[in-house]
This record gives sequence, structure tokens and C-alpha cells, in this order.
Amino acid sequence: MAIRKIGIFTSGGDSPGMNAGIWSAVKTAKFLGLECVGIRRGYEGLIENDVIPLRLDDVKGIITQGGTILKTARSKAFMTAEGRAKAIETLKRHQIDALLAIGGDGTFRGALALMQEYEIPIVGIPGTIDNDLFGTDYTIGFDTALNTAMTCCDKIRDTAESHGRLFFVEVMGRDSGSLALHTAIACGADALLIPEDTTDMQRLMEKLKAHESKARQESFIVVVAEGETQGGALSIAAQVKEKFPVYDTRVSILGHVQRGGNPSAFDRILGARLAAEAVKNLMQHERGVMIGIMNQKIIETPFVQCTNSKTIAPIDLMKIIE
Amino acid sequence: MAIRKIGIFTSGGDSPGMNAGIWSAVKTAKFLGLECVGIRRGYEGLIENDVIPLRLDDVKGIITQGGTILKTARSKAFMTAEGRAKAIETLKRHQIDALLAIGGDGTFRGALALMQEYEIPIVGIPGTIDNDLFGTDYTIGFDTALNTAMTCCDKIRDTAESHGRLFFVEVMGRDSGSLALHTAIACGADALLIPEDTTDMQRLMEKLKAHESKARQESFIVVVAEGETQGGALSIAAQVKEKFPVYDTRVSILGHVQRGGNPSAFDRILGARLAAEAVKNLMQHERGVMIGIMNQKIIETPFVQCTNSKTIAPIDLMKIIE
Amino acid sequence: MAIRKIGIFTSGGDSPGMNAGIWSAVKTAKFLGLECVGIRRGYEGLIENDVIPLRLDDVKGIITQGGTILKTARSKAFMTAEGRAKAIETLKRHQIDALLAIGGDGTFRGALALMQEYEIPIVGIPGTIDNDLFGTDYTIGFDTALNTAMTCCDKIRDTAESHGRLFFVEVMGRDSGSLALHTAIACGADALLIPEDTTDMQRLMEKLKAHESKARQESFIVVVAEGETQGGALSIAAQVKEKFPVYDTRVSILGHVQRGGNPSAFDRILGARLAAEAVKNLMQHERGVMIGIMNQKIIETPFVQCTNSKTIAPIDLMKIIE
Amino acid sequence: MAIRKIGIFTSGGDSPGMNAGIWSAVKTAKFLGLECVGIRRGYEGLIENDVIPLRLDDVKGIITQGGTILKTARSKAFMTAEGRAKAIETLKRHQIDALLAIGGDGTFRGALALMQEYEIPIVGIPGTIDNDLFGTDYTIGFDTALNTAMTCCDKIRDTAESHGRLFFVEVMGRDSGSLALHTAIACGADALLIPEDTTDMQRLMEKLKAHESKARQESFIVVVAEGETQGGALSIAAQVKEKFPVYDTRVSILGHVQRGGNPSAFDRILGARLAAEAVKNLMQHERGVMIGIMNQKIIETPFVQCTNSKTIAPIDLMKIIE
Repeated sequence: MAIRKIGIFTSGGDSPGMNAGIWSAVKTAKFLGLECVGIRRGYEGLIENDVIPLRLDDVKGIITQGGTILKTARSKAFMTAEGRAKAIETLKRHQIDALLAIGGDGTFRGALALMQEYEIPIVGIPGTIDNDLFGTDYTIGFDTALNTAMTCCDKIRDTAESHGRLFFVEVMGRDSGSLALHTAIACGADALLIPEDTTDMQRLMEKLKAHESKARQESFIVVVAEGETQGGALSIAAQVKEKFPVYDTRVSILGHVQRGGNPSAFDRILGARLAAEAVKNLMQHERGVMIGIMNQKIIETPFVQCTNSKTIAPIDLMKIIE
Repeated sequence: MAIRKIGIFTSGGDSPGMNAGIWSAVKTAKFLGLECVGIRRGYEGLIENDVIPLRLDDVKGIITQGGTILKTARSKAFMTAEGRAKAIETLKRHQIDALLAIGGDGTFRGALALMQEYEIPIVGIPGTIDNDLFGTDYTIGFDTALNTAMTCCDKIRDTAESHGRLFFVEVMGRDSGSLALHTAIACGADALLIPEDTTDMQRLMEKLKAHESKARQESFIVVVAEGETQGGALSIAAQVKEKFPVYDTRVSILGHVQRGGNPSAFDRILGARLAAEAVKNLMQHERGVMIGIMNQKIIETPFVQCTNSKTIAPIDLMKIIE
Repeated sequence: MAIRKIGIFTSGGDSPGMNAGIWSAVKTAKFLGLECVGIRRGYEGLIENDVIPLRLDDVKGIITQGGTILKTARSKAFMTAEGRAKAIETLKRHQIDALLAIGGDGTFRGALALMQEYEIPIVGIPGTIDNDLFGTDYTIGFDTALNTAMTCCDKIRDTAESHGRLFFVEVMGRDSGSLALHTAIACGADALLIPEDTTDMQRLMEKLKAHESKARQESFIVVVAEGETQGGALSIAAQVKEKFPVYDTRVSILGHVQRGGNPSAFDRILGARLAAEAVKNLMQHERGVMIGIMNQKIIETPFVQCTNSKTIAPIDLMKIIE
Repeated sequence: MAIRKIGIFTSGGDSPGMNAGIWSAVKTAKFLGLECVGIRRGYEGLIENDVIPLRLDDVKGIITQGGTILKTARSKAFMTAEGRAKAIETLKRHQIDALLAIGGDGTFRGALALMQEYEIPIVGIPGTIDNDLFGTDYTIGFDTALNTAMTCCDKIRDTAESHGRLFFVEVMGRDSGSLALHTAIACGADALLIPEDTTDMQRLMEKLKAHESKARQESFIVVVAEGETQGGALSIAAQVKEKFPVYDTRVSILGHVQRGGNPSAFDRILGARLAAEAVKNLMQHERGVMIGIMNQKIIETPFVQCTNSKTIAPIDLMKIIE
């Protein structure tokens, strides 16, 4: 059966560059003679029949915008057979022949569940700021979040240096230290704490010991991954303060600013490339795969693999911070 | 006695544009045939004889940089007569004839104390992101901090809108809601909580009630001043969550990023103008005044007034957010 | 006759912050119980009946966006009685009771012409990057353009300093040197050429003479206003090259990037304040005035004055660059 | 003979991220127990004995800065045997055991010449915004320049859309269309002209024909590579204007802003990684190679290959712009 109409949705945590993906998918679909509709709020919208037209005019200019014009959500209802039955109703009602899913591993798990129950080709592209998806060297949104976190650290360096302060800067990444690791290198951080490294706390203490004579004269910045296992930036700062009272200590939790903002060139191009490729794959009756980029090449990875494995942060890069 | 050598220092919380002031002071001094030295870490450096040369080459390119190359501190020692005696030693040792003080009301209080005990002309310029100094419509650093806070809110809006979330964004300002107020207008916030307004909590609740049907579909952003009297963003968020469980609530505390960053054009020009004027004032044996800008004109205000009054945030602007 | 429906339009060169004005006008109008429509492409749209609804939902999020969602144009047809007759038809057809005009002196001249022929209250707010409108200390868009030009100069400084080059950077401003002047101060330029100063070329040559020994070792940046009378940056660069061959000379014409971009906090707040005030003025049957800000106060100036005078760039600031 | 002292220099056109490389090299060298000196202005400084110390304190904070603190130059004198003899004198005088060269193919050609005449290990890393060096997927500076060009195009889109204008935006790249190609995708350009594609002019004309009915209503942006063979943006704009007078046409030549600015995270990390690796290579007596990154792996390529081949822009990406 020929593919004539594609439904596009974003799901899970939003990330900058998702809109570039939507834009490119609509453009490519039009080029190939396909129609597009948007499903709002991920699987929630699929269940609730929240479907909107997506023509070229609807996506005009969105390549520059953060967030996702299709909105996103995490759907509990979709984890039930009942929820998925409603989703299938929506697909039938709108004669949607195939789905482009933009999101992370939860998104692809949902896609797998749906494909087991209904004959619908789904192809995914990786949208998350965490850069921990198996099957791609980069996820859409990572580079923007990295530049945002780095810019924040640069600003914090300004004031830390003026006051001679020790800062703990908490960067997003509940399960992965990738964003924190790259942020630390990019801002020239003095130390780094990530879940992937169990020896870092000890090294931090050694460094603080060595730097003690310069405390209050010079800045010292520790980047802490959100998922760090010592209890988070606030707790670590308290421990350090107790051990090294000479330091004038501050904590900054960067938070949700890391999820927004106009996407960087890298994320726009990545989103545009992967989405264009995904639409072509759907056209060719591919299904159940995520389109990623590895070693500079566009590749496909079955959803099953994407949901069972994680990409590990390149911790050998930590040595640059030593 | 002719002024031949000026000591420049920054004191209190740092703010973007302080370096523009230093640069301009050195440039103007050179033009007028004066020598400059820098005193590092405010009154601490004055006490500890931490004095460095400041020639044109030393300030090259710093107009673009956040923070202060002279570093800053809050000095407890300077509050003692003993501390100030040491400071006077430093002034004598380096034959410093006059001082340019860049900072806030605490800075000028220190200057007043010193001038009571020693014959030294001191002129100040207002460096703080809070914009609450009496004697000037704008303080150096406010515009940059405002743009930083606004940009953060813009990013948060992206993700808030994608997820249909309610965000409480805490903006700096322990005693003043000025930064929060201007940030709220600039980012098109949906509500604002500042210390200057006691009715805002009630209005927030009314607005949230009215917006309830759109919760989870659209974003809602509340800007909260750090000095807000209801207990801060985290506490307010908890109260709101209890009353309106339908909202998907998040808190973001912007923190120290607001103190850093390359200064905006406004702050660079303001810093450069006020510092140039301050040096000229010192040359003309002015003393004990802060140079500010009011109604587009450079004006002088005695330190005593600057330290006894505050500029109130223009709360009538709040109506734009209604 | 009560005002019930307001037509909003932007006209002349676009400037960042116009959208903030549109957003605020719609918000204020709704608060006051008025209806809004948008007229696209300024007087062109008025003539061609290009009118769209403007509800709160239509202006959601535009406060962050550069350009104008109502588009803009310069209309020759409106300079004819025939064109204006058609415009009046449009006003009648849509039962538009009053107009909010966002633009520059050309815009207000058009408004004056229309008001002579038809009973329609028109109030204006100043939207132009040039900051040369009589009746306001700041025009909407100036601060953003200034920050854009400054940021460009900062980047040019990086490469100029690396290579030891002399750069002529041309900044917009056909009739006014205001943008160039403020850019020059903000980026710490080494020299400035503006139409308002006839002695600047001579001083430039003196400075280049004095700097000759450091040519090729250090950067030298000359900011040139577009309307400079010596023939523009390219011609001046050629003259200088001939006289001082030792300099490695480059020209950069910043161009239209200065007209775009997300508006700065200053421009958003200014746009929002002036537009809110303009709507209130229309409600109170004011007409024929531009709402501006002078000495920190919102004031009204008759269109006749705005179109007959110019605000002069504050050339006394030039001394900071000496 | 053991390597004890490394000389670091930047040469050719500067690019953002060179400072990150210098910072990382000094850090790595210190970690390995090596001493560093900086040679200013590339081969010019080597000839003129312009050598400065490079300790950790000398490179503090430079990771955030554009340009190169070591300055750069293109040296004619070094192309002569006489020049190189003087350079060798400098190496001997300072007991420099090895060189880290940051630059492009011209830089590596110079290195090859020197290594033929004198026993000095030289390792290079790729610093250029053009991204056309053989032996690496990315050059240091490309990502920053790309983001700068994209941001400029975003701003131009704002004003182009407001006025319904056709813009020709010229992007750097004398020999390579890589920067222009990626910029065009990232900003969602409507057409692209690069030296690598001979059919693009025809397609542009077709697109302009198809878009003619929307001219003056909507924007149209053409990204033009500097090295495009039809005569540059100005000439093409004139040709187009003659053929399609309905378009309101503008030209913007982005120029040297693309060379400066704080480096992006990508460029800082790339610079830091490659420089660290280069120092280790020198320590291990490697020589005559450029350290690049290909398929996510750090690799070495002999200078001879780097100077004889070019990396071709991935023109298959052009289809995204169709």
C-alpha cells in the first residue's frame, strides 16, 4: 500500500531542533508528493484526536525556533491497551499511513507497542538534549543545550573570578553525564562530577586542597551532572564547605533554560537531515527504525536496540579537565 | 593640591559594565594627564596594599568583558577603624590623591567613613544589577542583567509552551523588584511577584483560576523577585501546586548567571560616560558624590543621600502585565 | 463617538520591538474592551484592504520576535489623493474608529495627510533604528540595532587584533550618526566618522599618524556612519590606504543585519509601554500625536513637530572616543 | 633527544577556537612536564624572534575568547630560504624542541619547508573557518563561523519578511562552499549558490520565476558563497533585478564578522582535544602530521596530504534546500 499521508509528532522532553525536523519533514514530504498532518502533544494527541494540518505555510520560519510547535507530553494513557486503541482510531480517522516520531527512547518504546498492535510504519529521529541515545553520535538538541550551558558557565566565571568564589554548577542529565562533560571542557571548568565516574569526588577534594592557597583570589568552577550520585550540587557544596571553609561557595542549578532557545546551526542541520531521511524511509516502507548519524553517515537502528542500550558519555575526554 | 594619581576600585557585588567604567576612567585620566592605579578587591585591597598599575595597555579590550578586572569583595575589616587606618597607609604609600569608587550603597558608606578620617577626595559611580540606587535612573549592570534574565525566560517559554507548564522563574533582587518587574514585561510574563506589591499573590491566584482550563495546553510564566515576601519561588510553587493540582509546575532560579556576561551596549556606554565624568570631577576637586544619570543628564548626588534612600521600582509598569 | 475598533499598522523601515508594540496594543485594547484589527504593509494595506483580525491569540509570543508580523512598506500610492480615498474606503468597510501608527516621520506625515481628509483619530509611536525622531529620547529598535552593531564590532575586533588590521565598519544611519556614535563608544572604537561632525576626518588622519608605529601589530577600528559625507567606508578606506600604505586595511558594511533580530529588553519594554499608552490616548480621543519618552516620562508630541524636526545625535559623547 | 620545550604558533587566517587550542596545549604540556613558549604572528614572529612565555597563568580564561592571543600573519619572508634561516636561529636561541602549528594548508606547507631544512618536529592542528582541510571532518572555527552566519541570516530574514524582499547574502569561502551550504540549510534559505555546483544559477532563476507572484509579499533569501563563479552577490543581484524587476532586491556581505566572536562549544572542545593530542604526539616524537577528527576518531594525516587535497563540501545536502 502506498504511503500518502504522514503523521508527525514530538514526544517526551522537548529539545531545540525538533522544529527544524518538523520543517524539513514537511518540505521533503511535499517534494515527494506526500501529505502531512501534525499530531499534537505526542501520544496524548494521538489518543485525543488532536490532529492539525501541516502544510509548508504552517511550518514557515519555525526552523529558527526552540521548543516544538506540535507540543509534547509524556503519556500514561498510551501505556494501556485502551489508550493505544484510541490512538489507532485517530490514525484510521485521518487516514494516516505512516508516522514520524521525534523523541527519545520512551517515544520509541511507545512506537514499538503500537506497531505490535496495528499495521503502521513508524520511523523515528532522536530528539533529546541528553545525547545518550543508542544509534546516533548526536541527538537533536544536544549541541544547543551544550552551548546554553557553556554560555551560562562563562557568565558565572565572570562573577566567580571577580569575587574569588567556588561555584558548583549543576547541568541537566539525570542518567547521563554527557552534557556536563562537554560543558565542563567547553567552559574550561576546574573539576567535573558525573555519574559515570566514581573517582571524581576524591579528585575534586585533591584539587580543592591544591587550590586552597588561591581560594578567595581566583575562581574555581565545578560542573556537576544532575544525575551525579553524591546527592546533587547543593549537597556536595555543603560537604565541601565543611571540609574547606576557606572557600566562598555558591551553587547554581541551570535548570530548564537548557531545554529552550533558538537551535544552534548544528541542531538545525541535524534535525533537517534526519527528518528528510526519515520521510524517505517511510516512503520506502521502512519501519521500526530510528534514523541517526554515526561516523558522519546517516544510519538506521531498530527501535529495539535504541531502547535497550544507551550511548555512554566519552569519559576519556575528562583528562582534558585534569 | 593638584590631583596627580587616581586610585580606582570596584566593591560590593560585581556587575557587567564595571570594566567599561575602569577602561573609560583610565582613558580620561590619561587624556587629562593623570596617572591611574588599580586597587584590587575593593576595600580589602586597600587594607592589604593590593595595588596594581593601570595604564592604557592594562585596560585594552576590557570594555567587552563582564566582571571586573580589579576584582571585588565585601570587606568586614574596613568597618573597623583599624582597617581604615591600614587603608590610609596604602593611600599614602602609593601617593594616591583621589579615589574612584565603583559599586553600590555599601561602597559609598565605606567612602564616607574613610573621608571622615582622611583627607581624600572620593567620587563614586553606581555599579549594581539591582537598579535601586538613589541618584541615578540606571545603574551600571542593570541592563545586561535584564537582558540575561529575559533571554533565560525566553528559553523557558519555549519548553514551557511545548509541555504546557507553569513556571516560577526567580530573578535576582533581594531588596528591589526592579529587575524582576522589567524582566516580566520584557518576556511577556503572565504574572509577577515583587516585594513592592502586597496584592500580587491574590492576583496570581485569580489569574491561575482563570487560566485553569488551559493548564497543560499552554504555558504560564510567573516571574518572582528573589526578595519576594511569600517565601521565594519554591515555596510559592508548592502553595500553588496544592491549590491548583492541574498545573504541571516547575521552578527555575536563574541565580548568578545574571551577574556575568559581556555587558550590553547600554551598560558599556553608561559605565564609560559616568566614569569619564567622575574622573573630571575628581580633577576639579569634587568629592563625596556619586555621578549618576537622571532625565538624560549627568548629575551628582552626595553619598549621604545615596546611602539613605533607595530608588523604588516603577510599579505602575506592572499594569502592562495585567 | 466612542472608539470601539482600532486598526494597527507598521510603516516605513521595520525595527525590532515593533512586534512588542503590537502585542501590547492588543493586550491593552482587550483590557479596555476595544477590538483590534491589523492592517498589513502599512498604508499599502490600507489602500488594498489588507486587513486581518488581531486577537490575543494572534499576537501570542510575538514580543520576542524581530520584524513586524503586520509587515511594512513605503507607499507611493498613499501620497496621492486617489490612494488615500481608497484607504478611507477600507477604514469605513471595517468600521475602524481609530488608528495606531508605528513608524517614523514618513509614517506620521502620511497620518497627517489622512487626518486632513477624513475624521479618523491617529496616534503614533516611534519605530525606527535611527533614533533621530523628534519627541522621544529613544525610538523602538535603536537599542537592539545598537547591540547588534556592537556585537559585530566585537567580532571584528577579534580578527582585527589577531591580524593587526585597520577596519572601517559602516553602521546604518543615512541622516543620523546616532547609531554609529553609540556603537563606537560601546565597542571602544578608535575613531568615528559621522555626518554631524566635519572635523572628524582630520582627527582620523592624526590618529592614524600617531598609531602608525603600531600598525600591523595592533588593531584599529573606525566606525563610519552610512550617511558620512566623505563618500562612505569604501572610499575613505581607499583614501587612507593611499596615505598610510603601512596599514592592512579592511572594510565591513554591516548592512541589514542591524534591522533584525530578537528585540532587546529595552526595546520590548519601550514598545510595550508606548503602545499601551497610545491605545489609552486613542480611547480618550487624542489624535495627531506621537507618544514618546523624554526624561523618563511618557509624553505626546504633535505629528507636525515630529515631522519638522530631528533629534540630533549627542555629539559631545564623541570625546569618550578621543 | 627528549622534547622539553614546545613552541606554539597560529598562522594564516584566524579562526575562533584557536585560543582553546593554545589553552589546552599549555595545559597538556604542563601535565606532561613540558615547557611552552608562544611565537607571535606565525612564521613572521619566528623570523623576527617574537617569542613570549606561555604558562598556565598566561592562558587563563582564553578558552572563551575569539581570535588568537598569539596573533597571526601570512609571511612572505618565510617563503625564502633566508627567512627560514632566521626562523631556525630563533628556534635555537630559545631551545625550542618542537612546534605546534595551528592553521591551514599554507601553514602546513611552511612547516614542511622548515622540516626539510632543520631537524624540528612539527605537528599541526586545523584552524580555519572554511572547513575544507583534508584530514579532518571539522576544522576549528567552522562551527562558530557557521553559527555567526546563520544568526546574521536569521536577522536578515526578519527584515526581509517584514518588507517582502529578496536578499542575496554573501558568506565567506573563497575556494569552498561549505560554510555557505551549511548556513543555507541552517537558516532555511530559499536558494544557494556555491562554486561546487554549476547548475545552481539556473535553478535559482526557476525558483524566482515560481515565487514571482509572492514577490514583495514574502521574503526570499539566497545564500551566496564568496567564491561563487558568477561574479559575487552584487553582480548576481544585478542580473536578477534585470530579469525580475518585481523583486525588491538587497545584498548583504557578511564579511569579517564571520571570523570573530566567542567560539562555540563545538570549536572549543575540538580545539582543546586536537591540541592536547598534538602535544602528546610531539612528546612521542611524531612529526609532519596534522591531527584531525574523522568519523569521531582522532587521526593523523601527513602534511603532504593535507596540502595536496581539499575536503569537498557535501553538496548532496543541497537537496534539503530544494
